[in-house]
Order: sequence, then C-alpha cells, then structure tokens
Amino acid sequence: MLIPSPNGIVTLLTDFGPRDPYVGIVKGMVKRHYAKADLLDICHAVPPQDVGVGAFFLAAAANRFPPGTVHVAVVDPGVGTSRSVLAAFASDCFWIGPDNGLLCGVIARAAGPVEVRSVDLDAVGLVADSHTFHARDIFGPLGGMLASGRFGFRAVGPRVDNYESIDGLEDRGPLVVMVDHFGNLITGISANEVRERGIRAVEVKGQRVPVCQTYSDVGAGELVALVNSYDMLEVACSLGSAARALDAGPGEAVAVVEEGPA
Amino acid sequence: MLIPSPNGIVTLLTDFGPRDPYVGIVKGMVKRHYAKADLLDICHAVPPQDVGVGAFFLAAAANRFPPGTVHVAVVDPGVGTSRSVLAAFASDCFWIGPDNGLLCGVIARAAGPVEVRSVDLDAVGLVADSHTFHARDIFGPLGGMLASGRFGFRAVGPRVDNYESIDGLEDRGPLVVMVDHFGNLITGISANEVRERGIRAVEVKGQRVPVCQTYSDVGAGELVALVNSYDMLEVACSLGSAARALDAGPGEAVAVVEEGPA
Amino acid sequence: MLIPSPNGIVTLLTDFGPRDPYVGIVKGMVKRHYAKADLLDICHAVPPQDVGVGAFFLAAAANRFPPGTVHVAVVDPGVGTSRSVLAAFASDCFWIGPDNGLLCGVIARAAGPVEVRSVDLDAVGLVADSHTFHARDIFGPLGGMLASGRFGFRAVGPRVDNYESIDGLEDRGPLVVMVDHFGNLITGISANEVRERGIRAVEVKGQRVPVCQTYSDVGAGELVALVNSYDMLEVACSLGSAARALDAGPGEAVAVVEEGPA
Repeated sequence: MLIPSPNGIVTLLTDFGPRDPYVGIVKGMVKRHYAKADLLDICHAVPPQDVGVGAFFLAAAANRFPPGTVHVAVVDPGVGTSRSVLAAFASDCFWIGPDNGLLCGVIARAAGPVEVRSVDLDAVGLVADSHTFHARDIFGPLGGMLASGRFGFRAVGPRVDNYESIDGLEDRGPLVVMVDHFGNLITGISANEVRERGIRAVEVKGQRVPVCQTYSDVGAGELVALVNSYDMLEVACSLGSAARALDAGPGEAVAVVEEGPA
Repeated sequence: MLIPSPNGIVTLLTDFGPRDPYVGIVKGMVKRHYAKADLLDICHAVPPQDVGVGAFFLAAAANRFPPGTVHVAVVDPGVGTSRSVLAAFASDCFWIGPDNGLLCGVIARAAGPVEVRSVDLDAVGLVADSHTFHARDIFGPLGGMLASGRFGFRAVGPRVDNYESIDGLEDRGPLVVMVDHFGNLITGISANEVRERGIRAVEVKGQRVPVCQTYSDVGAGELVALVNSYDMLEVACSLGSAARALDAGPGEAVAVVEEGPA
Repeated sequence: MLIPSPNGIVTLLTDFGPRDPYVGIVKGMVKRHYAKADLLDICHAVPPQDVGVGAFFLAAAANRFPPGTVHVAVVDPGVGTSRSVLAAFASDCFWIGPDNGLLCGVIARAAGPVEVRSVDLDAVGLVADSHTFHARDIFGPLGGMLASGRFGFRAVGPRVDNYESIDGLEDRGPLVVMVDHFGNLITGISANEVRERGIRAVEVKGQRVPVCQTYSDVGAGELVALVNSYDMLEVACSLGSAARALDAGPGEAVAVVEEGPA
C-alpha cells in the first residue's frame, strides 16, 4: 500500500470544551514540533469521556479533508494508564488517538486499505510530562511530527491487528442516538435502511413524522424526518427544535410506522 | 470596476454552534478545494436560522479584514430548496451566502462599488450531495475555489440586481435588538442619531441611564449607555451584565429621555 | 539580552466568549497589519473581566508555544480609560495586554530574563477608533505589527519596572480556585507543596479524597486528588464531575488531612 505524504494540515477533535486553555496549549505543542502545521478544529464539544460520540464525529470527517491530513483525536478517560496510542492510515489520511475505540469508526468505514500501528513512544522520542494531559504531552507532539514528515507513518511503531472496538452510534438502530445544535434528533437508522425498506414515516413519542427530502418540505414548526448530513435518518422541526418540540433526547425510541417499495 | 485578487483568507460565519463537527467539516471541504486557504472563524453562534443577526455580524466584519478576503456565510433555513446562492463583491472583499438577506447588510453598508452575482452551480462544477448541508457541499467548496483564484469572481454566474432583503437590526429603532456575551443590551439607535440629536440619557424599564464614553465612566455595578463597537447605542453595566441587572433582552423598549445640542 | 525574531504565530486569549463576532474581527485586524500572521486561539472563555483567571490561563501557555510567538491577551475592564498597554518579553515569547495584572503570571513564572515595555501608541502609529474595543483597535493590530517584524520589540516604547500586579490563583492556598470543563476542582495547592509536604489526602465538604497519580486510580464515580496539567492539586471524579458530585465551586475550602514523608 502506498502511503501519501502528509499535507501539513493537523486537525484536532477532543472533549475538552471551550472553557479552558487546554485546546490552545495542544495547538502550541503541535507547533513546537512542526512550526508550519496548519491547524484546524473539527470539534471540541464531544461530551466528556464519550468515546462513542467522538468516534462518530471523527468518522464524519473522513473524506472531507485533503489526502495526507493528520487527524489528532483525544477523548481519553484512560489518560495516564497503560492504554496504548494508535496511529492509523485510512481513507487517505492519518488518524492518531488513544486505543479505546475512538478510531474504530474511521477504520470500519474506510473504503480503501487500512493500516493500524501501535505507537512506540520511545522510538518517536516522546515522554509524558503528566498523568493527566497526554494531548499536550503525546498526541499533539506526535501529530506535529507526523505532519512534518520528519519520519514516515510506518516508523511510529509496529503494525497491530487487535485494538479496542466499540459499537458505533450508527449501529444502535431505531432510537435517538444524539441531538445536535439545532435540536435535530439523530437516529440510529441509516440512509441505506431508509432506501432499502422504503421508510415513509416514523413515530416518536406517539407523533407520526413523514420522511421528506428537506427541512422546508413541511411548514414552520412542523416535524419532518429526513436523511441528514451524516447519512442517517433525523427527526427535525422546520425552523425550530425537534428536541424541544418533542421533549426528546438520546435513547428515545423511534418506530418505523410506514414502509413501501423504495 | 477593478476587482482585487483574492488574498487566500477564507472566513466562516454560521449558525452551526460549537456542539457538532459541522464547522470542522466545512473547513475540510474548503481545504479540499484550496489546500492553502487560510481559514478564520468570524462567529458560529448566530442564533439558529436568525438571518437578521447573521447579516448584522457579517456587516461588522466589513473593512476589518484585508482586501481580497473571501467571506463565506451560512445561515440557511431554506437549505435544500431552490433558493439561489449569491456571491458579492463589496468593501474590497468577496461575500458568499444563500439569497435570503444574509448579505444585505454588507451590500447596504458598502462605501464603494458593489457587484452581486447569482452563482451558477453547473458553471462552477458543484453539485449538492445532500439536501441538508450546503455549507459542506456548496458554500465551503465555492469559497475555496474563489480564494484559490482558479476562476475569477465574474465567472461564478450572471450579475443580478434583485436579491432578498431584510430589515437590519440597525434599522429597528429605540429597542434592544441583541444581547452580547457581556450582557450588554445593543439597541437599534445608531451612533449618528446619538450625535445628531445629542442624546444624553435613555430609559430602560423605568431606569434612567446616562450616555457616557466608556464603561468605567460610572462605578462598578452602575448602568451606562455608550456608543459601542458596532457604532450603535448600547446599555451596559460597569463590571457586570446589564441584561441581568435589568432583566431585559431583545425587544425591550429604550426611550430617549434627554436630548440637547450635540 | 538577545530577543529572538518573531515566528509569525499570533495567539489570542480574551474574555469575549463565543457568542459575538468580536474575536473574528480582532483576527481580521491582526491580518490587516500582517497578512501572513498564523493565528491561534488559546481561550476566549475567561469569565468576563476576570483578570486573575486570564493571567492564570496565559501563564499556562508559557513554554507551550515556539519561541518568538506573539501572545495577545485582552481581559480589559478598563478599556477606554488611561490604563496603559504593556508588551513583555518572557519565556522566549512576546506578550501584549492591558496593564492591569493580566501579564503578571507570565512575568512572575518566567525562568529566564524578562523585559517589560509600556507601549507608546503614537510611536507605533495606533489610534483607538472606539472607547470599547481596543482588542480591535490596538491590541490586535499591535500583535500583527510585532509578529511581522516591521519593528523590533524594543521599538514599542520605554522599558518599565512598575506595572500592575495581582495575586495569582496559584497563591491562594487551600481552596478551590477554579472549576474546569470536566468539573475538576482546581485548588490553590501547588505540586511543589504536595511533594514537599508529602500530602496524601485532602478533605472537601467533609469527604476525604486520596491523592493518586491518575484519574483511573479510583473506580468510576469515585473522587480522586492529583497533580494536574497546571501543576496544581486538583480534586476530580473518575468518569464524572467533582463539581457536581460535591456541589462545590470556587472558594470551597480544601483541607490537607494526611501528610507524610514525600
């Protein structure tokens, strides 16, 4: 398998939130290891320690950045323990994160070849200064080093076939798996299932919601279901918040109530 | 009219919030179309679907970035419908957004010449992958293309003289039009009006507030009115939040109670 | 003392929050003064007007960015008054901010030589357009100019030995000084004190909390104290929020209940 050169872009995805200087400090450490790194944020609002949501968000970034991008992801409840650090090549990009399932969405959904390596910290010359902030001590510096091209992807450590895996949000079936900023209820029903079964309506909390194409297919304040930007079925409220309108959140059941030839 | 070359900067303003990877994905798509794009955020906290606030924030960015900056703005309740995409040249920069009034503040307040074009998606080679996320499928890629200089501004589509327009926050008169992060009550009274009428005090919820120059012209915890960073009259609370002190928000009446020769 | 060349990076730390376009506009103004500036955010969620937290966050960025970085910090309740503008060289980087104590953590904690100057706005050619937004009118432009190398650090104004100073969070002793995004209770007890006194447990709200090395040294939902990323003692809750578990916040007493030879 041919591994492309890094393109200089380093993205960050964490559960660090906006309140503290943690993300800024990680960026500084990337820059200390590669002054020309072109830093971009994917998201820092993964719910604290929620590896499942982190894996889902990370997978949504696949094929949305140029080939050779280095993605650094840190949702790391096991920081300071002996959990290992993974570096993967998948979907033409590099992905760095703790070995806790965070990278498994990216790996599972990769169309082309995948190569996963366990990072040998001695080999890359990194030592953790703390037991609490490996994004600063390990993940950020490693991202900078990899993006700089100082050493190749295959030099980070040995290839591995076994790594932690978790159930993806997209495999959780007919329920609400997440609520977004707009109050859209993202379900575990995939676009494929909508198409194959010809799903024409769902029911949430006793309310029937038609499957349409776009938010404006219903009137303001009305509920609508549609295939969303993640390629999942979503229940939305036109010009409003479905989460508020239905008082619903993660875990709420979503029943398919009408199917037909797709 | 001479159109300057793009300078490589692409800014983003949306109502996407911090919670999801949506903004990060748009940045990736800008980069896929122009790897060297220099991405900067203006604001992603426009209230969901509030085109008026979006237009106001966007206009505040005029003349604050270098000439040739490409500003991409997406507050787009009509995503997936047939609403068209605009590209404007105004105040020495390029502005891209849906044709729903979002660009009208920038256009109305431009000092120099303005040129507005309706984007021909076929001509620029863009197709929407989704009915829900045109920032990713259309606006971001178009911003990258325009910033790259691959084609000129005039190649995006035909010139138009008719486009959607909305009332600006700055035309709404004597009431609170917005509350900012500090709890400052931003009114629809312009700096010009303050100067021309010589406004020396206003009244909000029965409380008289003197017009001063700076937050520290009154003691801690006291109310003060002043011409703010948007060149509008604002009611603030020194070292505190006027919104909290007065329990006031958008729509609250602001009466001019004392005028004199300016 | 040899002053290194600026490296082109300009960081921003403010209390402006995410809600408004204020931070974006400052970035534009940095770019207007230095088009190639490489802008990075440290944090914009310093509590409004809280110079103490701002100084603490800023000091945490020392030695975490490459030498020659220009750090622009604006927590500025005295905006529009005659308070002066400082530029400091410390820990191999440049630091710009109002003279209100915001830079004193960086200065106090610098390992090597420090040089502090009072910015002469006339000399650098800057005039405030407003009485409310000097980040846009003064601090951002100055950061851009300094990063551009157009003039050297010593040209910004005369050297000063007297500037405002405030008590640092790290000098406040045995109480909670801050709560972070994860609900970790950051105390004013330093890592040095933990080591020197051999502190083995603390008590908060009547609950005894053992000092361990890492979050996972206790079971999920249990309390743990440890030396954190700021090199301070912190009370955390494994896979949870200590702030919520203890219903505790800034000001809460933290008693050392067990010491021994370190």
